[in-house]
Amino acid sequence: MSMNSFGHLFRVTTWGESHGPALGATVDGCPPGVAIDEAMIQQWMDKRKPGQNKYTTQRREADEVKILSGTFEGVTTGTPVQLLIENTDQRSKDYGDIKDKFRPGHADITYYQKYGIRDYRGGGRSSARETAARVAAGGLARAAIQTMAPGVEIKGYMTQMGPHQIDRAHFEWEQIDANPFWVPDAKAAEDWAGYLDGLRKSGSSVGAIIEVVARGVPAGLGAPVYGKLDTDLAAAMMSINAVKGVEIGEGMSAAMLTGELNADEITMGPDGPEYSSNHAGGILGGISTGQDIVVRFAVKPTSSILTTRRTITKSGEDTEIITKGRHDPCVGIRAVPVGEAMMACVLLDHMLLHRGQVGENRGHIS
Amino acid sequence: MSMNSFGHLFRVTTWGESHGPALGATVDGCPPGVAIDEAMIQQWMDKRKPGQNKYTTQRREADEVKILSGTFEGVTTGTPVQLLIENTDQRSKDYGDIKDKFRPGHADITYYQKYGIRDYRGGGRSSARETAARVAAGGLARAAIQTMAPGVEIKGYMTQMGPHQIDRAHFEWEQIDANPFWVPDAKAAEDWAGYLDGLRKSGSSVGAIIEVVARGVPAGLGAPVYGKLDTDLAAAMMSINAVKGVEIGEGMSAAMLTGELNADEITMGPDGPEYSSNHAGGILGGISTGQDIVVRFAVKPTSSILTTRRTITKSGEDTEIITKGRHDPCVGIRAVPVGEAMMACVLLDHMLLHRGQVGENRGHIS
Amino acid sequence: MSMNSFGHLFRVTTWGESHGPALGATVDGCPPGVAIDEAMIQQWMDKRKPGQNKYTTQRREADEVKILSGTFEGVTTGTPVQLLIENTDQRSKDYGDIKDKFRPGHADITYYQKYGIRDYRGGGRSSARETAARVAAGGLARAAIQTMAPGVEIKGYMTQMGPHQIDRAHFEWEQIDANPFWVPDAKAAEDWAGYLDGLRKSGSSVGAIIEVVARGVPAGLGAPVYGKLDTDLAAAMMSINAVKGVEIGEGMSAAMLTGELNADEITMGPDGPEYSSNHAGGILGGISTGQDIVVRFAVKPTSSILTTRRTITKSGEDTEIITKGRHDPCVGIRAVPVGEAMMACVLLDHMLLHRGQVGENRGHIS
Amino acid sequence: MSMNSFGHLFRVTTWGESHGPALGATVDGCPPGVAIDEAMIQQWMDKRKPGQNKYTTQRREADEVKILSGTFEGVTTGTPVQLLIENTDQRSKDYGDIKDKFRPGHADITYYQKYGIRDYRGGGRSSARETAARVAAGGLARAAIQTMAPGVEIKGYMTQMGPHQIDRAHFEWEQIDANPFWVPDAKAAEDWAGYLDGLRKSGSSVGAIIEVVARGVPAGLGAPVYGKLDTDLAAAMMSINAVKGVEIGEGMSAAMLTGELNADEITMGPDGPEYSSNHAGGILGGISTGQDIVVRFAVKPTSSILTTRRTITKSGEDTEIITKGRHDPCVGIRAVPVGEAMMACVLLDHMLLHRGQVGENRGHIS
Repeated sequence: MSMNSFGHLFRVTTWGESHGPALGATVDGCPPGVAIDEAMIQQWMDKRKPGQNKYTTQRREADEVKILSGTFEGVTTGTPVQLLIENTDQRSKDYGDIKDKFRPGHADITYYQKYGIRDYRGGGRSSARETAARVAAGGLARAAIQTMAPGVEIKGYMTQMGPHQIDRAHFEWEQIDANPFWVPDAKAAEDWAGYLDGLRKSGSSVGAIIEVVARGVPAGLGAPVYGKLDTDLAAAMMSINAVKGVEIGEGMSAAMLTGELNADEITMGPDGPEYSSNHAGGILGGISTGQDIVVRFAVKPTSSILTTRRTITKSGEDTEIITKGRHDPCVGIRAVPVGEAMMACVLLDHMLLHRGQVGENRGHIS
Repeated sequence: MSMNSFGHLFRVTTWGESHGPALGATVDGCPPGVAIDEAMIQQWMDKRKPGQNKYTTQRREADEVKILSGTFEGVTTGTPVQLLIENTDQRSKDYGDIKDKFRPGHADITYYQKYGIRDYRGGGRSSARETAARVAAGGLARAAIQTMAPGVEIKGYMTQMGPHQIDRAHFEWEQIDANPFWVPDAKAAEDWAGYLDGLRKSGSSVGAIIEVVARGVPAGLGAPVYGKLDTDLAAAMMSINAVKGVEIGEGMSAAMLTGELNADEITMGPDGPEYSSNHAGGILGGISTGQDIVVRFAVKPTSSILTTRRTITKSGEDTEIITKGRHDPCVGIRAVPVGEAMMACVLLDHMLLHRGQVGENRGHIS
Repeated sequence: MSMNSFGHLFRVTTWGESHGPALGATVDGCPPGVAIDEAMIQQWMDKRKPGQNKYTTQRREADEVKILSGTFEGVTTGTPVQLLIENTDQRSKDYGDIKDKFRPGHADITYYQKYGIRDYRGGGRSSARETAARVAAGGLARAAIQTMAPGVEIKGYMTQMGPHQIDRAHFEWEQIDANPFWVPDAKAAEDWAGYLDGLRKSGSSVGAIIEVVARGVPAGLGAPVYGKLDTDLAAAMMSINAVKGVEIGEGMSAAMLTGELNADEITMGPDGPEYSSNHAGGILGGISTGQDIVVRFAVKPTSSILTTRRTITKSGEDTEIITKGRHDPCVGIRAVPVGEAMMACVLLDHMLLHRGQVGENRGHIS
Repeated sequence: MSMNSFGHLFRVTTWGESHGPALGATVDGCPPGVAIDEAMIQQWMDKRKPGQNKYTTQRREADEVKILSGTFEGVTTGTPVQLLIENTDQRSKDYGDIKDKFRPGHADITYYQKYGIRDYRGGGRSSARETAARVAAGGLARAAIQTMAPGVEIKGYMTQMGPHQIDRAHFEWEQIDANPFWVPDAKAAEDWAGYLDGLRKSGSSVGAIIEVVARGVPAGLGAPVYGKLDTDLAAAMMSINAVKGVEIGEGMSAAMLTGELNADEITMGPDGPEYSSNHAGGILGGISTGQDIVVRFAVKPTSSILTTRRTITKSGEDTEIITKGRHDPCVGIRAVPVGEAMMACVLLDHMLLHRGQVGENRGHIS
C-alpha cells in the first residue's frame, strides 16, 4: 500500500502527481485560533518554487496555494485545512520517450514493480513536485508555532555541495538569504555558483548536504521510545525525495568520539540549564534539551542527466536512456525549504503531544 | 506523552524499565501459522545479552524470554504475542548517588523536564535495557519472515569503532560471528580488542558505526511517500538508544557524488533486473529494488565514564559527577543485534503491507 | 483536536465546511488497478444530492465530484485519490441570525466550547454536507470491491420513519429504488409520503431508522478484538451526523432472547457452512461468517424546526430561536446513501487487512 | 490481521488467551504523576471476577493484577504500564469435546475461517476472559481521571434482563451496589434473582441491556468528525464480547421523536449552560455538553447452553453439540464493570486529546 500521511496530532496527508491537475496537503489537527492566510503560506512556497534562477529546474510553476477549508475570518477553526496547488506548466510531451524505459536511479522501476502501473509523466507521485505540498503544510505549521511558542526560529541552509563544504569559521547567519544556495558563507556562495554552472552546462548533477536548525525550542518535546524527537525528524527528512542520510548533532561522526568529548556538560544559568557544547544536537533520550535542534541530511544527485546510461524496458529488454526533461543540477538547493517545512511540522506535532500528555506535570529546574 | 509502539501491521509495543520486575514486547499483527518457540527467540537474546565478555557491561542478566500469549501448539495464532523478560540482576543501590544529579549526555535531565518525575534506577525507561524487548520482537519477526520469504537473510556487523574502520577489501562474511565485535575483518577484530581494552581500563568509552544488510528481499516493499522503506528504517534505527545518524546505501557520502557516479545502471538478468552497483542501498523511491538493503547507523559513546564532569542537581545547583555503574565501553557492540532486530521488524511489516495492498497487481518484469 | 480520518488501510480523510469554497475526501490506500472515473462516483453522489424532491432540503448543489489525483488512464495507481466537490449554492446570508445564538440540538454550542471559535455558516464542519465527501469515498470503495470481490452487493433502505415501521412480511428488494425514501415496501412508501408532507408543512421534523445490508461478503473479515468488523461498522455509522444508535443483527433486541433462540445453527451446504437464521447479522466474534452483514442505525430528527425554542447566546444570555434555513424534515432519507458508503469503506478496508495478514493461512471448510 | 489496541493517546493493547499462562493490558500514554497501586486496580477486578455468586460462571480466578512497569514510588512515570493477570483455574480438559466442533453463536467458526488455526481452549482470544484486561486498564484510567478531573463519576448498571426492564420511576442510585446484578431498583433485583435462577437450572441463558453513565464530564470532549466522543464510545462498547447494539441518549428511539421533542432546550445557569432534558445523552456533534454522558449496550445471551444444537465439524460434517463448560446464564451481569472500564478509557483519552489540541482556545460561556 501507499502511506501518505505523517504526524501524530498535527497530521499531514499529501496528495497529487507531478502532471495531474493539482496537488496539495490535507492537514488535520491544526489547533484553532491560528492567524493564517494564503500570503503567509505563499512566502515559503516562493522559496521552493522552480524556475527562479538558472541553478534550478526550468519548469515554471506559479505554485499558488489556495486554502479551501479549515479557516474562518482569517483564523483556523480546528477543522481540516486543505491546501491546494494547481499544476500549470505540465508539458507532458517531454516525458513521452521514457514511457517504457526505467530511468536508472529513479523510482520508475520500483513503482512499476510495486503497483503494476506507472504514471510516467514526470515521475508521477515520486516526483519532487510532491514537496510543494510539504512546504505549504510547513507554512501552516510555522504559523501555529508562532502562536504557541513565538520565540522559535527555523532555518535551513546548505553546508556541502559535491566536494565543496562550508567553512564553519566563516559562518554568517545573515548570508543565508543573500544567495541562491542558502549557504551561510559569502565566499562559498561565489565558488559554488561557478561550480554549479559548469555542472549544469555539462548536463551533470551533484549531491548536497542541508542543515536545518531550530532555535528557541522548549525543553521536553519528544515521545520516547518510538516517537522520539530525533526518530520523527529522521523519518521526516528521510522521506524527502533523494535523501540518503540523516544526522542529529554530531551525527555519523559521533562514532569517532570518546565519552569525554561527546557529553555536553551542564551548568546552571540564569534561565535554566546551560550546556558547554551541543554534540547532542539539542536532543537527549529523544527529548529536546532547550538547545538548538540540529539536523542534517544528504541529498543524492538527481539521476536525470544528459549522459547515456544503460537500463531496461518494461518488457525486460536491455536498452539505453538519456533524460532530456527539465531538471535540477543540484536538487539539494530546493530541498532547503522542504527540510525547514518538515522541521516545522515535526516540532508543532510534538508541541501538541507535549501539551496533551503532561501539562503541569513538567519538571521545572530553577 | 510517550509513544512506545512501532510498525504499521506488525506492531511492536515495548514496555518496562531497567530496574522494574520485568520488561517485554507486546507484538500485535503477527501472521498466524508461524512456527515459534522460546528457544528460537532466545538465540537472538543471547547475542545481545550483557556480561558475556569483558567488552560489555558486567550486569548479568539471564535475559530468558517467555511467550505468554499468541501461540498454540507451537505456532502463532494471529493474536497478540506477549514476550516477557524478567529482570534478575537489578542492584539498584549502585545508582543511589545519581538520584539528584543529571548525568551529562544522558536522558536524565530531559526525562525530568518532560515528565516531572524520573525513575533514576539505571536510567529507567531510557536504559539500553529496553532494547532486549526489541531483540525478542525481532526474533519473532525473523521467524515470520522465514515462513513468508525463506530466502531473506539479515546480518549486522560493526564497520567502525572510534577512529578504526574496517578495510572493505578484507571484508569476510564468515568472520562476523567469529569475534566479540561482529566485525567482518579478522585483522580489525584483533586491533579493536586491544584498543577497547585500553579504553575500558581508563574508564572511557567510544562510539561506533554498525551496518545491517538484508539479502534476498523481494522488490516492491515500501509505502511511499511517508511509509517508504528507507523512512521506516531511518526511524527504526534512530529510535535505538544513542544513535545519532542513519544512512541508506551511500548515505551522507551521496552529497559528494555526481549523477553519473551515483545512479546504478540496470540490465536484464536471468531472474529479473540486475544492477551495476548499489549506491541506492537497495531502495529507490522508498521501495525495495531486490538488491541488498544496506543501512548504517552511528552510536555515540556512552556518557557513563569514570572522568569527573560538570553537571547540575534537580534543584538547579552546579555540581560534579562520576558515573560508577556497570556500563559498556562501546555500546555499539551490543547495538548490532538490536539493529538486526529492527531491520527484521521493518521488513516483515512491509511484507505484510505489500500483501495487503497490491497482491496480484504487482508489475512483473520478464 | 479534531480527527477527520477513518479506516486502517483504506484511509479516508474528509475535509471542508458547509459554506467554504469546496469540500472533499482524500483517500489513501486504494489498491492500484481499480477502474474508476468521475461518472462512476457521480451516480452515488446523485443519490445523496439535496433538492431532488420536496422531502429533502431545498439547497441546490450540483455535487459534481472531480478526481484530482491518484488515477492514470482510467485506473487507480495506488497513490492518494483526491475527490473534490465545489460548493455552489452557499447562500450564507440565511444564517446571519444564528450567528450569536446556539441552536438547541445542534453542534453549535459544543463546537464553540471546544474550539473557542465557530464557523456559524450552515453549521460549518458539523453540517451534514460533510457526508457528501463520504459518499464520494464510498463510490471509490465500491469500485475497488467490485474488482476484489465482484459478488458483493451493498444496499441501504429505511425501515422506520417516526412511528411508522415497515412490514417485514411485505419486504420487496425491488421497491427500494422505486420511491423517494428507499423503503422496501410500496405501501409504506405511500403512507410515509403523506406523513412527511404534513411534517414538512408544519415545519417539524422526525427521526428514522436505516438498515444497510451487504450480501456476498466472504467469511473471515474483521480484526479482533478492537478492529472487529462490527466495532468498525458501529464507529462508522455512529460518526454520521445525527446518529444515536447502531445495531448489528438482532441489535438491542438481543437482550430479550434466550441462548436457544439467539444462536444460529450451522449445517453444511454445497458451498460451505450454512446457517439456520441470522440473528448475528453475519458477524461472530467480530468476524464475518459469509452471511448477509446487517447493520441498522437510528437518525434523530433535525433540530432545525420552525417552532420557537429556548436557548442562550454566546455571551450567556437567555433567548429564543427559530431556525429558518433550508433543512430536511427527515434527514434520515439522505442518510441511506451515506450508510451504504460507510459500509463500502469498512468492508474494503477489512478486505485489504485480511489479505495483508493471513493470505493462504485461512481455514477452509470443505 | 488482528488489532488489539484502542485509544488515540491513552492507548490500551490487551493480550492473552483464556487458557494461556496469563493475560493483560499494555497501556501506553498514561500521564505521569498519577497515584496508583495494585489495590486501586484490584477493586474493579473484583467487581468483574467470576465465581462470586451462583449467577455467574463457576470458573474461579483470583484475577490478581500485577503492575510490571510504568510506576515508580507509587505514581505513574509517563512510560508504558504493563498490567498482568495470571490464569490460575484453566481446567482445559473441560473443552476437549469441542475441539473439532464449532459452537453455534460462538467465534469458533470465524476464528478458524480467518486464521486457519484455532485455540479451542475456552475460546482462546475470543473468550470473555479478555475483558479482565480491559477492567485493569479501566482502573488505571479511573485513577488518571481522578487526578485530572476529580468530579467525574462513572457508573454502570443493568436496565434489562431478558423480558424484564427496570422501572425508571423506581430508579435508586444507591441500589446499584446492593445486589448481584447492579440493578438500580430493589424490586427488580428480587424478581431477576428468581428468573435467573430458573434459567441457570434449565441450562439456558439470556441477554441484557447495560447502561453506563458518566457524571461531571467537562464540555468540549470529542474529536469530530471520526473521533467523535459517541463514535469512540460506540466502538468501545461494540468491541465487548457479545454486544450487538449501542445507544447514546435516546438511542434507537430517537427515530420515533419529532424535532420539537428531541432537542434539549438551553438556558443559562449559575455555572454555565443548562439543559431542559438530555435526549442527546450528553453529546452534541460528537462533543460533550457537560451533561451526563449516557450510553447503553445490549449483550446477547451466551451460546453455551445445555440444549443440543446442530452444527458442523472442522472437516465439514453435520453434527450436534452441547456445551458443558462453566458459563454464565447472563453474561450481561459481568459486562457492567467492563462497560464502566471502556467508558473510563474513552473519557481519559479524550481529556488528553482535548488538552493537546485546544488548551486556552476553549470557548467559555459566562
